[in-house]
Amino acid sequence: MMYVTRREHFSSAHRLFNTAWSDERNQEVFGKCNNAAGHGHNYYLEVTVAGKVNPETGYVVDLKQLKDVIISRVIAKVDHRNLNVDVDFLRGVIPTAENIAIGIWGELVDHIPQGRLHQVRLYETEKNFVDYRGEA
Amino acid sequence: MMYVTRREHFSSAHRLFNTAWSDERNQEVFGKCNNAAGHGHNYYLEVTVAGKVNPETGYVVDLKQLKDVIISRVIAKVDHRNLNVDVDFLRGVIPTAENIAIGIWGELVDHIPQGRLHQVRLYETEKNFVDYRGEA
Amino acid sequence: MMYVTRREHFSSAHRLFNTAWSDERNQEVFGKCNNAAGHGHNYYLEVTVAGKVNPETGYVVDLKQLKDVIISRVIAKVDHRNLNVDVDFLRGVIPTAENIAIGIWGELVDHIPQGRLHQVRLYETEKNFVDYRGEA
Amino acid sequence: MMYVTRREHFSSAHRLFNTAWSDERNQEVFGKCNNAAGHGHNYYLEVTVAGKVNPETGYVVDLKQLKDVIISRVIAKVDHRNLNVDVDFLRGVIPTAENIAIGIWGELVDHIPQGRLHQVRLYETEKNFVDYRGEA
Amino acid sequence: MMYVTRREHFSSAHRLFNTAWSDERNQEVFGKCNNAAGHGHNYYLEVTVAGKVNPETGYVVDLKQLKDVIISRVIAKVDHRNLNVDVDFLRGVIPTAENIAIGIWGELVDHIPQGRLHQVRLYETEKNFVDYRGEA
Amino acid sequence: MMYVTRREHFSSAHRLFNTAWSDERNQEVFGKCNNAAGHGHNYYLEVTVAGKVNPETGYVVDLKQLKDVIISRVIAKVDHRNLNVDVDFLRGVIPTAENIAIGIWGELVDHIPQGRLHQVRLYETEKNFVDYRGEA
Repeated sequence: MMYVTRREHFSSAHRLFNTAWSDERNQEVFGKCNNAAGHGHNYYLEVTVAGKVNPETGYVVDLKQLKDVIISRVIAKVDHRNLNVDVDFLRGVIPTAENIAIGIWGELVDHIPQGRLHQVRLYETEKNFVDYRGEA
Repeated sequence: MMYVTRREHFSSAHRLFNTAWSDERNQEVFGKCNNAAGHGHNYYLEVTVAGKVNPETGYVVDLKQLKDVIISRVIAKVDHRNLNVDVDFLRGVIPTAENIAIGIWGELVDHIPQGRLHQVRLYETEKNFVDYRGEA
Repeated sequence: MMYVTRREHFSSAHRLFNTAWSDERNQEVFGKCNNAAGHGHNYYLEVTVAGKVNPETGYVVDLKQLKDVIISRVIAKVDHRNLNVDVDFLRGVIPTAENIAIGIWGELVDHIPQGRLHQVRLYETEKNFVDYRGEA
Repeated sequence: MMYVTRREHFSSAHRLFNTAWSDERNQEVFGKCNNAAGHGHNYYLEVTVAGKVNPETGYVVDLKQLKDVIISRVIAKVDHRNLNVDVDFLRGVIPTAENIAIGIWGELVDHIPQGRLHQVRLYETEKNFVDYRGEA
Repeated sequence: MMYVTRREHFSSAHRLFNTAWSDERNQEVFGKCNNAAGHGHNYYLEVTVAGKVNPETGYVVDLKQLKDVIISRVIAKVDHRNLNVDVDFLRGVIPTAENIAIGIWGELVDHIPQGRLHQVRLYETEKNFVDYRGEA
Repeated sequence: MMYVTRREHFSSAHRLFNTAWSDERNQEVFGKCNNAAGHGHNYYLEVTVAGKVNPETGYVVDLKQLKDVIISRVIAKVDHRNLNVDVDFLRGVIPTAENIAIGIWGELVDHIPQGRLHQVRLYETEKNFVDYRGEA
């Protein structure tokens, strides 16, 4: 068993707020992340695929194919976008790093070219990141 | 002569467009940076002060004081904000890295505790950055 | 299940030696880390919390609250300190990265605001780091 | 149980191709990695050792000894070398990151000074890396 | 005057040797860099353009256009290539970082879309880099 | 003219205080950097040499020779040391980043193998660094 990771990047705007809450409650919980006109981040995404090494290629997964899937199914939808309004797979959720990671997992899990999706790591800043492995 | 640099960070949303232009012209020039709902970045700011080393302290400038100036005059105004609408010193300019750097220079140049402001470097991403030294 | 990590920084002095040993034995085992007047590092601490995503906030843990706990219970005690003499939770242990990580785990494990402490990673340099998960 | 990681670096040339395949098949699968005269990378290797903390030293493993083993058994054989022709432990395999990691595991697993080898992580670039834990 | 920098990456093989010298002399001067089958690096290239900020765009230079020039005139020729044999603009020179930087300067200096080329910085590793400004 | 930079690392303890001052004055000026038992840093040193490229070697300066000079004249004296008491070239100065950089300049300026010393950059942390070019 081998774990192979590909790192990609996107730059997005977002705002954290719960539409069911009052402005006061949103400000109390989300603080500066609740700024009405939004803010943004350079996100770094690390997608890890687990699998056996193919003896003919020495690859678990062809990284060009994996990159193409990540670009077409994730990066093209989120890069230079507003995560609150522009992204189909984030409709109806608060775009925290946690929820973005879950959304990305859903976009990728059935489309890995070889092997299986093992983990999605998402860096929101150098100081904050989340890991999701599809566990309930 | 010694050059002392302090690095700080802020996360902001922005959108690039020229209000005097048509939508088509804006899209042609700014491309994905023109996304209507904006996008965002983790910016890294490096402020360089030039001066003589004070023999009593071994400092060109007290970095705690310099940090306080950077935080109060810049970071507090741009962090977790939208650079198109929330920032007084960016009113009326397109918030490109170049214009943000010029704005930051203006905020800092008369408020350096010791020494003189030498350079503002602004990283928009790991791959794009600008340097401004107040030169006409 | 989601894993959320917060990174913080501290700068400390330390010296590695075992008080029960001769100077020769200490020098043989700890080498340059045994320098009598000490040396120091910029440490990077990554604290990982595991838990369910709260559907109301999209958070596993409020990172502002987690940061406050890390600052008050760890960083305030070790930053710009000497780990051999200034830190209550390191009394009586050799301040190796391993023992510092165990001490930090003890400071944090009962004070995580939401979720549970999953891992403490401590970078002593870019080339040396340790992971501790509270396992016996 | 504690996990201790040491990071080292090497710079090597390689070319990806399967000697049992036609040129066309190699080009189709390996693309630019199949360039006849080769290409190369700055590889970063992270070796993780698991074990108990020795109460006399505060160490799981003496990092000087671990470093010496990594240098003598791995780095000295691959640094400033061509991985297709110069490295005994890569004879007969396509030098993908996956196969290099397996080769490094084999070089190290029986020579860890204290504790046991837990993981080999190999970065081929900032965007591509693999993890191997000796699992069948 | 503003300085705008774009960073790009390429991975190449090379070997350092002077064809006019004996094997012994090459080994004495170039040491492990003279390995007959070559070695390689992940190079990072930073291209800096100097110019006035265009008030209509807020740009010194359109980074998409600058990137396209760097990709087509440099990266496409050196990435996943052997710098001794595959690169037209390095014919007849020893591919040290210095000579690669001079070659890249020559490829770019007359093709900068707006502003003028100010500096080429080339990182061969994290520990070695060169700066060239076209100065005789 | 070409500028070649070599990066090296050292880990040291230090304490900032002026022996001519009262404890109160030292605490007021140096704050947490005045901690009696010291603190420490992982310092990164970048030494830049300027010169012509030698057409026979493609080098401005042989980096192995430059590295040897940096190691023997600087790193060996400061790594895993206390900068207040262990370092001959820092006797009698407050070991701020500024004064350490000046001391390192003095150690290196007459010992550069080829070319001439252009700049010493010293990172005390990721957020603080100084540049010294030998200017009065």
